[in-house]
Amino acid sequence: MSLKVIAFDADDTLWVNEPYFEEVEKKFCGLMGDFLSHQGLAQEVFKTQIRNLPLYGYGIKGYILSMIETALTVSDKTLSVDAVEKILQYGKELIDKPIELLDGVENILESLKGKYRLVVATKGDLLDQQRKLRKSGLGHYFHHIEVMSDKQETDYLKLIRRLDIKADEFMMIGNSLKSDVLPVLGIGGHAIHIPFHTTWAHEKIDHTIEHVNFKSFEKIADVLQLFTL
Amino acid sequence: MSLKVIAFDADDTLWVNEPYFEEVEKKFCGLMGDFLSHQGLAQEVFKTQIRNLPLYGYGIKGYILSMIETALTVSDKTLSVDAVEKILQYGKELIDKPIELLDGVENILESLKGKYRLVVATKGDLLDQQRKLRKSGLGHYFHHIEVMSDKQETDYLKLIRRLDIKADEFMMIGNSLKSDVLPVLGIGGHAIHIPFHTTWAHEKIDHTIEHVNFKSFEKIADVLQLFTL
Repeated sequence: MSLKVIAFDADDTLWVNEPYFEEVEKKFCGLMGDFLSHQGLAQEVFKTQIRNLPLYGYGIKGYILSMIETALTVSDKTLSVDAVEKILQYGKELIDKPIELLDGVENILESLKGKYRLVVATKGDLLDQQRKLRKSGLGHYFHHIEVMSDKQETDYLKLIRRLDIKADEFMMIGNSLKSDVLPVLGIGGHAIHIPFHTTWAHEKIDHTIEHVNFKSFEKIADVLQLFTL
Repeated sequence: MSLKVIAFDADDTLWVNEPYFEEVEKKFCGLMGDFLSHQGLAQEVFKTQIRNLPLYGYGIKGYILSMIETALTVSDKTLSVDAVEKILQYGKELIDKPIELLDGVENILESLKGKYRLVVATKGDLLDQQRKLRKSGLGHYFHHIEVMSDKQETDYLKLIRRLDIKADEFMMIGNSLKSDVLPVLGIGGHAIHIPFHTTWAHEKIDHTIEHVNFKSFEKIADVLQLFTL
């Protein structure tokens, strides 16, 4: 393994994210409780989000817009504009959430810094992810942040081209088998899976992965086993 | 001048953009005409946009969210949810606008391609700008697209660091004196201004620029005068 670049996914790999979205979803379901069950609402938001992905992409702003759209549909446009205002407010609070680093993150970055070029490779809104990195205090560990509109094989191919490296000089570490692991293995890179306790439905896959370039660890600290530093 | 990278702003430099926003603004003002004059509404949307910039950043999704917020405020929450639905629809239409290339763009890219590394350097939503570049058919002229969360001196410093060049090896071509010219001159780069017939209020400055690294041309085709190709 002649690694040059190690890329870290951000949300739920470096810091907590999905639980904050779930918190907002819960509030939304409370707000809309007159119209549908919690589960029904969550499903409708998810369907709207997926339908709007080609237009809005990933990230909080698209999520807010999809929540508003869902609220209009589910209520058959009988909801009050107060509810719309509340959804806007949920979104702003979500954007402004504090950053809670996951265990072991700072330690592994400290250990790998200077030995490899470290980058953040994440989906979501550009400004949000830059803001989160700044608030995390981890910025100095990374050469830069790559905000990607998607994490499919073509996106990773563009990324390694930009980084001016070959695929087998690239390692991705992340919590999503679908976004951080499969496409990276697909283009010939290395991928490490660190599961997070909760995963957005869109990121779930239903099969196991076996590959010579693939490893899974319970905690990010365990990744250090791979390196003789 | 030992140029290596020429960066092109995208909106209103390579293709039409601001008139599409103005079209939506007009529709919004029509929709909200019961509450305030066209000018009053435009001003309120602008104020909301600027207030939300630190949270939402540039781009269409933040614009839609700010329009909805303005509609709630201006109507004192008496507007119908139908209006909210219409605003969401305006946003989707704006995202899906066709790309109309500006005169001379393709020709200058064809002339400079291969002689310099050409990049797109633009603010806005990541996915939107990537989509527009793909729809424009200009993608093959560019090494890559840089979507920037802002265009201040610090953002350009990060950009040239990523591009691994010195400031005086960098040239920016764009329609905004505030975003494409001043900060680039400030860090020691070269900047070319190609005015567009209409400019978003936020991008306006009220003084003239004289600088050895600065040129202004009426049409993008005129930029070729600078080069002996």
